Amino acid sequence: MDHSPFRVSARPGDRIAELSTPRPIIDETRLAANIERAQRYFDEHGIAFRPHIKTHKIPALARAQVEAGARGINCQKITEAEVFAEAGFDDILITFNIIGDEKIARLKALNDRISALKVTADSAETVKGLADAFTAERPLAVMVECDTGAGRCGVQTPEAAAELAALIAAQRSLRFAGLMTYPRPAGHEAVQAFFTRALALLAQAGIDCPVVSSGGSPSLFEAHLAPVVTEHRAGTYIYNDRSLIRAGHCGQGDCAMHILATVVSRPTADRAVIDAGSKALTSDLLGFADHGLVIGYPEAVITGLSEEHGVIDLSACGAERPRIGQKLLIVPNHTCVISNLFDEMVFHRDGVVTRVEPVAARGLVW
Amino acid sequence: MDHSPFRVSARPGDRIAELSTPRPIIDETRLAANIERAQRYFDEHGIAFRPHIKTHKIPALARAQVEAGARGINCQKITEAEVFAEAGFDDILITFNIIGDEKIARLKALNDRISALKVTADSAETVKGLADAFTAERPLAVMVECDTGAGRCGVQTPEAAAELAALIAAQRSLRFAGLMTYPRPAGHEAVQAFFTRALALLAQAGIDCPVVSSGGSPSLFEAHLAPVVTEHRAGTYIYNDRSLIRAGHCGQGDCAMHILATVVSRPTADRAVIDAGSKALTSDLLGFADHGLVIGYPEAVITGLSEEHGVIDLSACGAERPRIGQKLLIVPNHTCVISNLFDEMVFHRDGVVTRVEPVAARGLVW
Repeated sequence: MDHSPFRVSARPGDRIAELSTPRPIIDETRLAANIERAQRYFDEHGIAFRPHIKTHKIPALARAQVEAGARGINCQKITEAEVFAEAGFDDILITFNIIGDEKIARLKALNDRISALKVTADSAETVKGLADAFTAERPLAVMVECDTGAGRCGVQTPEAAAELAALIAAQRSLRFAGLMTYPRPAGHEAVQAFFTRALALLAQAGIDCPVVSSGGSPSLFEAHLAPVVTEHRAGTYIYNDRSLIRAGHCGQGDCAMHILATVVSRPTADRAVIDAGSKALTSDLLGFADHGLVIGYPEAVITGLSEEHGVIDLSACGAERPRIGQKLLIVPNHTCVISNLFDEMVFHRDGVVTRVEPVAARGLVW
Repeated sequence: MDHSPFRVSARPGDRIAELSTPRPIIDETRLAANIERAQRYFDEHGIAFRPHIKTHKIPALARAQVEAGARGINCQKITEAEVFAEAGFDDILITFNIIGDEKIARLKALNDRISALKVTADSAETVKGLADAFTAERPLAVMVECDTGAGRCGVQTPEAAAELAALIAAQRSLRFAGLMTYPRPAGHEAVQAFFTRALALLAQAGIDCPVVSSGGSPSLFEAHLAPVVTEHRAGTYIYNDRSLIRAGHCGQGDCAMHILATVVSRPTADRAVIDAGSKALTSDLLGFADHGLVIGYPEAVITGLSEEHGVIDLSACGAERPRIGQKLLIVPNHTCVISNLFDEMVFHRDGVVTRVEPVAARGLVW
C-alpha cells in the first residue's frame, strides 16, 4: 500500500524535536548497546543466539544482529520468513505450527529456496500434514515444541516430546531438528527438568537431538541457568520496553524505542491529552495499569487511550506540567506490537535523524 | 509498503472456508443492513449523519454511506482526510486539535483543495495557531470541542465554549462552524444541558451556531434524546463488534466483521491455540476480561493473546470441541483498531469472496 503523496517521512538530518507526531523513534546508541550486550552474554556462556525479528521486522537490524554474532533468525510466521529470505537470510526458524494447503505450499517453496529452514510442531496432525507435502530429496527440518509452563503451544510431557520426535524421525520427508520451548519468565528450572528428561528418552531411542532451543527477553541474562539449552531466541531485548524494565532485564536508559507525541490539549489543570492513542502505543497493558512512561514526568500516568488520543493524569505531578504544543517522549509498555503498526521506523542519534528503515515485514496477513 | 511477492490476497470467487488465516472478513449483507438501519434512524429523526471513517478507512465504504444519505464524513487526523480528499470527498470534519507547523501547512493545502473542511479546537492556543496560518480569502472553519463528560478533550463549561467561539469568530482567517462533543455513552442529558446553555450564551453574543455535533456508536439509536443536536458522528456501527452488543446497540447477527482463524494446536483437552493473536485481534479489551466471541462455541473463552497466538479455554465447552486445522470465526471486542492492522479487507456473501478493498488510510503516521 504505497500512499506516497500522504507519506510523512523523516529525512536524515531532520531534528527529532521537529518531527510531526505521533511516531516511534529509535535511539541508535542504545540500539547498538542492546545488540552488543546480549551477544556478549551469549558468547561468554557458549549459547547460540537466534534473535526473533518480530520485534523490529527490519532486515537491516537483523543483519546487525547477525554481524554481532547471532546465528540465524527466528520468525513467527511464513510471510515474515519470506520477506527475510528475500533480504538474503538463509538460516530461519519459524516457531509456529504450519497448517493448511496454501501455507504448506509456501513453506515448501521457501524450503527449496534457502538452505537452513526449520519449523516447529506440537502434534501428530501437524507433523503428518508436513510429511505429506515434503520429499526425501529436500526434507523439512522440524523441531518439537514443548510446553514447559507457559501454557501456550507444546507437547505436555518429555515422553510426548520423545514420541513426536520419533514420529518426525520416521518420516523420510522430514528431519528431526531438536527441541524448542517458549518458557515462562524465570522458568529455567522447568526448562532444565523437561529437556533433561526428554534428552534421556531420545538417547534411549537412538535419536540425535542437535538443538535445544529456549527463549524470551525478560530472563535473557539468566539463560545459562538451564545448561541443557544450546540456543536462545529473543526479540524485545533489541529495543527494550517497560515490561523488560519491570522484569529486571534492563533500565530506563536502555530503552531504545520511544513514542514521540505532542500535547494537543490541557482541558484541566490535572489532565493532558496527547496525540498518541492505541493506534500508536497499542492497548497492550502487559499487566500494567497504565500505558507507558512519560520521560521527564515520572508522576504522570497515561490512564486511558482512545484510538488517536492519550489521556494523561497529571494530578501527582509538580507545578511544572506539559504545555499545549510540547513534545513528549514515552517509553511504551510493549515494543513488538508497535513495530507492526508503522510502515517505517525513524532512527536518531544526538537528536538528529540518522536513517529511516522500511518495516519490511509489517502487517503481513499470515 | 508494497510487498506484492508476499501479498496473500483473496480473489472474488474464493471460498471463505479456504482462505489462509488469520484475517478479518466482512459480511456484505450485514454491512449493507448496518448502513441502511442507522441512516433510516437519522432520517426519521431529522438528524444529519456524518460517519466516522476511522472504523473502515476504505473510500468505497464511505461512498456507500454517503449514497445511503450521510452528509459528509468524519476523520480523526489530517492524513485520513488527505486520503479521502484524494478519493473525491469534499465535506470532511477532522475532530482533532491540529498543532504544529507541518500539520498546519498540510491542513492549509487541504483547505485550498476541498470546499467543506472543518476542524475542532478546545483551547485559545490551538485557535491562535490556526488563525496565524490561514487567510481571510480562504478561511478555515473551526468548531469548538466541548467536554460533556467523557473526560478527554474539550472546553469544560458552556461559558468557556462561548468564549472560545467568540475568539474564533473574531478571527478573519477563521469561521466559527459550531459546537462538537464526543460524549459518554448514554450521556444525552449532559449533552443536552451543556449545549442548550452554550447556545443561549452564543445567541446573547450574536454568534450564529450552524451545527451542534454529537457522536458515538453505543448510544447511536438514542441520539434523538438530545434534541439540540443537529448532527451525529459514528464509526463502529458499520461493522459492529462485541462492545456494541454489550451496549445494546446491536445483536450478534449484526456483526459484519469476523476474524477468521485456524486452530493450530490442542495441547490439552481444555486448551486450543489459534493463529490469531494481538496482531490480528489487538489487545483492546474495552472492559471485557477476554478477547472475543467464538462463533459456534459460546462457552469458549479467549483467555490470552500473544502476538501471533490466541489461547482458548475450552473447559466450559461440551464434548464437541474445535480440532486442529479447523477454522473458527471470532467476533472481536473492537473493530476500529483491527482495520488499522491490515492493508486489505476481504468482503464476502454466502461464503464466497465478493471483493477485496485496500484499507487506504491504514497506518498513516499522523
